[in-house]
Parts: sequence; structure tokens; C-alpha cells
Amino acid sequence: MDLTYQAGALCDVLRDRQPIIHCITNYVTINDCANAALAIGASPIMADAPEEADAVTTHAQSLVLNIGQLSPRKLDAMLLAGAQANRMGIPVVLDPVGVGVSALRTSAVRQLLETVHISILRCNRSEAACIYGMHVNQHGIDSDHSISISDGEALARALAARYHCTVALTGETDLVANAFHLYRLEGGHKMLSRVTGMGCIATVLCAVFAAASDDHLPAAIAALGTISAAGEIAFEKAGHLGTGSFHIAVIDALSQMDAQTLSSHLKLTEVSHADTQ
Amino acid sequence: MDLTYQAGALCDVLRDRQPIIHCITNYVTINDCANAALAIGASPIMADAPEEADAVTTHAQSLVLNIGQLSPRKLDAMLLAGAQANRMGIPVVLDPVGVGVSALRTSAVRQLLETVHISILRCNRSEAACIYGMHVNQHGIDSDHSISISDGEALARALAARYHCTVALTGETDLVANAFHLYRLEGGHKMLSRVTGMGCIATVLCAVFAAASDDHLPAAIAALGTISAAGEIAFEKAGHLGTGSFHIAVIDALSQMDAQTLSSHLKLTEVSHADTQ
Amino acid sequence: MDLTYQAGALCDVLRDRQPIIHCITNYVTINDCANAALAIGASPIMADAPEEADAVTTHAQSLVLNIGQLSPRKLDAMLLAGAQANRMGIPVVLDPVGVGVSALRTSAVRQLLETVHISILRCNRSEAACIYGMHVNQHGIDSDHSISISDGEALARALAARYHCTVALTGETDLVANAFHLYRLEGGHKMLSRVTGMGCIATVLCAVFAAASDDHLPAAIAALGTISAAGEIAFEKAGHLGTGSFHIAVIDALSQMDAQTLSSHLKLTEVSHADTQ
Repeated sequence: MDLTYQAGALCDVLRDRQPIIHCITNYVTINDCANAALAIGASPIMADAPEEADAVTTHAQSLVLNIGQLSPRKLDAMLLAGAQANRMGIPVVLDPVGVGVSALRTSAVRQLLETVHISILRCNRSEAACIYGMHVNQHGIDSDHSISISDGEALARALAARYHCTVALTGETDLVANAFHLYRLEGGHKMLSRVTGMGCIATVLCAVFAAASDDHLPAAIAALGTISAAGEIAFEKAGHLGTGSFHIAVIDALSQMDAQTLSSHLKLTEVSHADTQ
Repeated sequence: MDLTYQAGALCDVLRDRQPIIHCITNYVTINDCANAALAIGASPIMADAPEEADAVTTHAQSLVLNIGQLSPRKLDAMLLAGAQANRMGIPVVLDPVGVGVSALRTSAVRQLLETVHISILRCNRSEAACIYGMHVNQHGIDSDHSISISDGEALARALAARYHCTVALTGETDLVANAFHLYRLEGGHKMLSRVTGMGCIATVLCAVFAAASDDHLPAAIAALGTISAAGEIAFEKAGHLGTGSFHIAVIDALSQMDAQTLSSHLKLTEVSHADTQ
Repeated sequence: MDLTYQAGALCDVLRDRQPIIHCITNYVTINDCANAALAIGASPIMADAPEEADAVTTHAQSLVLNIGQLSPRKLDAMLLAGAQANRMGIPVVLDPVGVGVSALRTSAVRQLLETVHISILRCNRSEAACIYGMHVNQHGIDSDHSISISDGEALARALAARYHCTVALTGETDLVANAFHLYRLEGGHKMLSRVTGMGCIATVLCAVFAAASDDHLPAAIAALGTISAAGEIAFEKAGHLGTGSFHIAVIDALSQMDAQTLSSHLKLTEVSHADTQ
């Protein structure tokens, strides 16, 4: 089946299923995460106390772990909820926000990747490079190298292979990779980077679409395609007014997203191994 | 005095008094709760550390306890602030968000109801059913039954009688009950359920109006009527744009609410005991 | 150089530098703080766990300490980040939100002022009076006096002298003082007080502009002038719609602020010592 069509169709599937998404996330953008999930047709639960994290996960069809504004208590909640999600076989999406800015975040990401099976890793290139380096650093390889587009592609493939997951790498060009395939997604709008939370929303959308699809590759493509499409639509409607109105227009666009709008905005190309290496 | 007129008039009373509302609430919608309180004419303080909770309550005319995204520390703060509010004789409004999803929340609600006198219980039907069942379960009665409209009415009356409080039950039809009376409120808009925090705002409004009225029945009616009216007005203005713009328009409508607008939107009918049973 | 011109020019300087601002702040307005920083052209990091606070500060060009919704853990984070910022010589902006409402906040502010060198103290008059009284109370002087405009000026000068900092006092008329100069800023709009977080945004703007200027006096003037200008522009565009739309229009205005807009909105007058006393 054509991936562009398949990704678009997920938009309608999830509106029917209204999956419950358990999000353990930062407080900077927690309201946006909940509203984005509702706008696209899912049902969010935000609960991050270790005393109830795994109990809440039992009600969910998908789990988000976002380490922005991390604390040891939230990490405990993530480990408990992650273990519960793995037992249930529901998708887990990790957003390693700012990994590398502190030992707390770096060791948290290492611990999460070692103990929880992650379905989709959603991050930007410098976060991906940090995670890649975290590992190779143990063998003495320098991780401090600048990342170009083609390095991004190599990184996405390498992390997908190492963690047996789908990697959704956002940047000027978005990349989605699993062990077998790598796709480039063009589009979106640079104003998305002038509003906080657009990356966090992309992560929530990965979890929402993963709850509607056994195959996480089209889910990640649908998620990144949805936020890019919403950014393009929002900029056209409200970009001239400023970043506040643009922000609201992104949520508006999510709430009006459908299969056709999503498919028509997807600018997807598969990259062969020969092109990357 | 006519209740519709009385509820509307509270809108003007509170704008004069500008009551201070102490809110211990979740971080998903804490910004909306503060902005809704300001919009309608009150003055919110959000403070949830047990180290200062009761000290902050001493400055307030009303207290909100919302257990969304609960933690043991926040529960401690609620117990301290609740005790202080009871000593001062100011109204306490409880929103048992998601009671039943975890042992943490269920035991917290039980503890709050056992130790703090609640003035208004604001919740949805499944939360009300859970609280009702929590109690009867101890005597072996099954609480797991689906709730129809008439069950909602029975529930509202039963909880009002058991906890000597006013019950504000939101749903497709809203219900407000105390030990003697039960009212149905029609209206609102279903888009209110596609934005997070509209229930939390209804709870804050209960506290705001209760600070302006010794009788909590008209206060709860004014509160639910206000969010319903705001939803209707907001949908007309911005519903076609999407849920982001609708969200903003709800706050706009709260900031422009007045006695006449509120009274003219209230669709209130008293239900006699004969109708319910 | 003319201060009005100088303050305006900072607007362009910071857009070039895109300084990283580390904010330890309350969760009520944390999203607004991050979006305001992004809108004006800075890059915010919100991290408040003591386990990573000082590590995060090492990446920053400026630090915000906002005690709204304080907890002992956040205070620990502030003390660690503040010490790190002082070691690095980057500006620290303190917002003593609600100092005086509880012993927790009052003793926190005392501890912060005693152990961290503050570059800019951004607060309202009653908070300034509380801080002034905290000190003189130790010598038996009554701090419980009402504050008029001229007292505000005396307060601003006294706190600037005592703490060797710039004081940015917001109110109907804003005041900016250091040890040598005192300025009055007229303008702004009263609707700014009907949206939560406008004071918190003013504080973030102080940190943003301080990261673009070695002299904190023009930075504080630019910051207060920016939020006032944004309030005026937003009211003209969206005030008639309500406080929700006004709120969004403030962020819009911040994202479109430039040197000329800021300079043309600044209504600045220097107050001589003779006028104050």
C-alpha cells in the first residue's frame, strides 16, 4: 500500500478509535500536549506521580515519555509506566528533550533506553548525536562532531538498528527510519521553531498515530507530516499576525486535519542505502 | 427570588468583590484556571507546597482542590489548606478528576471527603459513580453499573445528602443538587469537551461564585451556566476556526460575561423528587 | 547615548545574539514565559530540578528566579543556579512573586538576596515594600505602611542601593532605579493585569535584555517598555474581543517588536533626587 495514502488514512482511523494516550511530560508544554492530542482525536491522560504512573498506563493505548524539565520522581514514574507499557505491548514514544545538557538527563535517557523497549524515538539531530555518542563514548570514540544532513540520515539508521525502534528525527528536513527503510519528509514552516512545544506535540502525535497502527513507520510519518502540515496551514492563516496567533492556528489545524489534508501535504521520498552511504 | 435572576446577579456581585481564590490544581490546566478566574473578575493564587498551603488559604475567600495529576505532596497541601478553609468557614470546592484511575486518587478523594467539609463537589458522572461506589463497596454493593440520565439525578441527590454539600454534575445535561433541590441545566456546546481544562474551569467558577454567595446552590448554577454560556458564545464566534481559537474565545466570553448574558443563557428546570425516582 | 534609543537598539542586538535564558519559574505561566522569550528572539531553557539546575545554567547567558508557586526543591535549584550564575558573571533576575503571603516565600527571598547577587529585582510595590520591611523590621521599624507613588520611588532607590542592583518596579507607573538614577515609565494598559503572567513575562524580558547589555539600567527599561508597548498594541488589536484574545495579541506583539516600535512607545522621564525626596 502507498505510504502517503496509508499515513493519511491513519488520521481517520484514530478519530474512530479515540485512543487514550498516557503522557509523562514537562510542564512547559503540557497544556499544548493535551490539547494537541484532543484536537487530533485522541484522549490524553497526564499523570506523572510514581505512585500512580503504572496504574494509569493500564488504561492507555500508548505512552509518551518526554524528559523536558526532568526530576528524579518523574524518571521513576517513566520507568514504572514504561515497564507496564512493555508488559501490555502498547507503543512507547521517547522524547529525549535536551539530553546532554545535564548528567541527570543523559543518565535518564541511558537508563530508559536500557530498561524500556522504545517504539519510536522522536528527537532532533543534536539529541540523536548525543545518544549515539553516549554509546560509542564507552568505546572511546569522540561524539562531538557536527551533524550534516547525510550524517542525520546515518544517525537515524544507526539508532533505529541499535534500539530496534522507529526513529523520527525532526529538523529542516525530517527523517523517519526503521531497520529497513529511511524516508525524508520536506515541508513544515520555520515559525514552528519560534513557539515552544511544537517538538513535544510531534512526540505526542507519534504516540497517537502509533496507537492506531501496528506498523510504527507509517505512524511516525503521519505524525511528523501532521505537525508539518499544521505549521504550513497555520502560517498561511496567521503567520502575519505573530507567533501567538500562529500557535493557536496550529491547534486549529490539528483539530481540522483529515486524511485528505494530511496526504496532500506529505512530501515523502524514500532514501536508498546507496544514497545515504 | 427567581434562581435564574439570582445566578445572573452573582456575576456582578463578584466583579465588585474580586474575591481571592486559592487553587491547588493540576499543571495541565493551571494557566487556564488562573486566567478564567481573572477573566470573570476574581483574583487567583495558585500555591500547592504543603509548606505554605494553609498560610496562603488565610488570604483567600474560597478554595479549589483539583486532584488532576496528583502527588502525595499536593495531597498534603490539600489536607492542610482544606482544614484551614474549614476553620475560616470559606467554601471548598472539590474536583475529583479521574478518581478511580488509580489507588492514589481514589484514596485521596476518600481522605479529603472524610476530613474536609466540601461545599461543592464538581465532577462528571463516572467520577460521581466511583465516589458513590467507593462508599457502598464497603458494604458489598457493586459500583460498576452504567449511568443514565436518571441515574445521574439519583447520584447527584445521593452524594449531596451523604456529604451535606452541593453537587455540580457536568455532562450532556448538567445537574445541580443539594439536600432539598435538584436542577437540570441544558446548553453548552460539545466542543467544550475537545479542549482540556473546561471541567477544571467549571470547578474554579464554582469557587468564584461561592465566594460571592452564602447559598452554594445558586453559586453552582451560576458557575455551570457561565461555562455553558461561554461555550455557546465561543462556538458561534470561533467554532468554525478550530479548537484552538474556540479555547481562546471561551476565555474572551468569560471576560465579557455579565448578569444579563448569563441569565439569558441559563436553561434551568427544577426536577421534583417524583420525577427522579 | 540617549536611553530611549539605547533601549530600543537592544531589541535588535538580542535578535542577533539569541541568548539562552535559564528560567526557574512557576508552572502557572511557564508556557507564557518560554513563548515570550522565543517571541522576542531569545532561547529559553526551563529546568528546575536541583539535580541539574547548575549544570543547565552553564549553558545560559542569563538566569531568571521566579518564586511563584515555590517549593523547597525549587528553592534549592535557585540557590544552586544562582551561585553558578554569579561564578560565571551572567545576570540574575529575581521576581519575588507574592513575597509576604507565606513564611516559605519570605524566608526564600531573604535567603536568595543574602546568598546570590541579584542583577535586576523585578517586582510590584507591595512586594518591594515587603522586602524593604523584612530588613528594617529587624531593627524594629514598622513595615506595614501603604505605598504611594513617591514612596514607590523612595523604595526603588532604597532597594537598588541596599542590594547593589537595578530595581524594576511595575505598577500604574513603572519605575527603574539603580544607585545613581531613577526613571519613570508611563504607558502600558490596565488589561495586562487581567491576564496571568504579564509580570512573569516582564521578568523574563529583563533577563533577555540583560543578556544583551552590560548595563542593566537600559536593559530593565527596555524590558518594561517592551511589555508596556506590547500591551498597548495588543489592546488596540484585540482588547474589544476579551482577555483571551488580548493575551495572544501580547505574544504576537512581542514577536513583532523591533527597535523603532519599542523606542517610539517608550515614555521615559528621569526623576532627580530633589523630586523624590
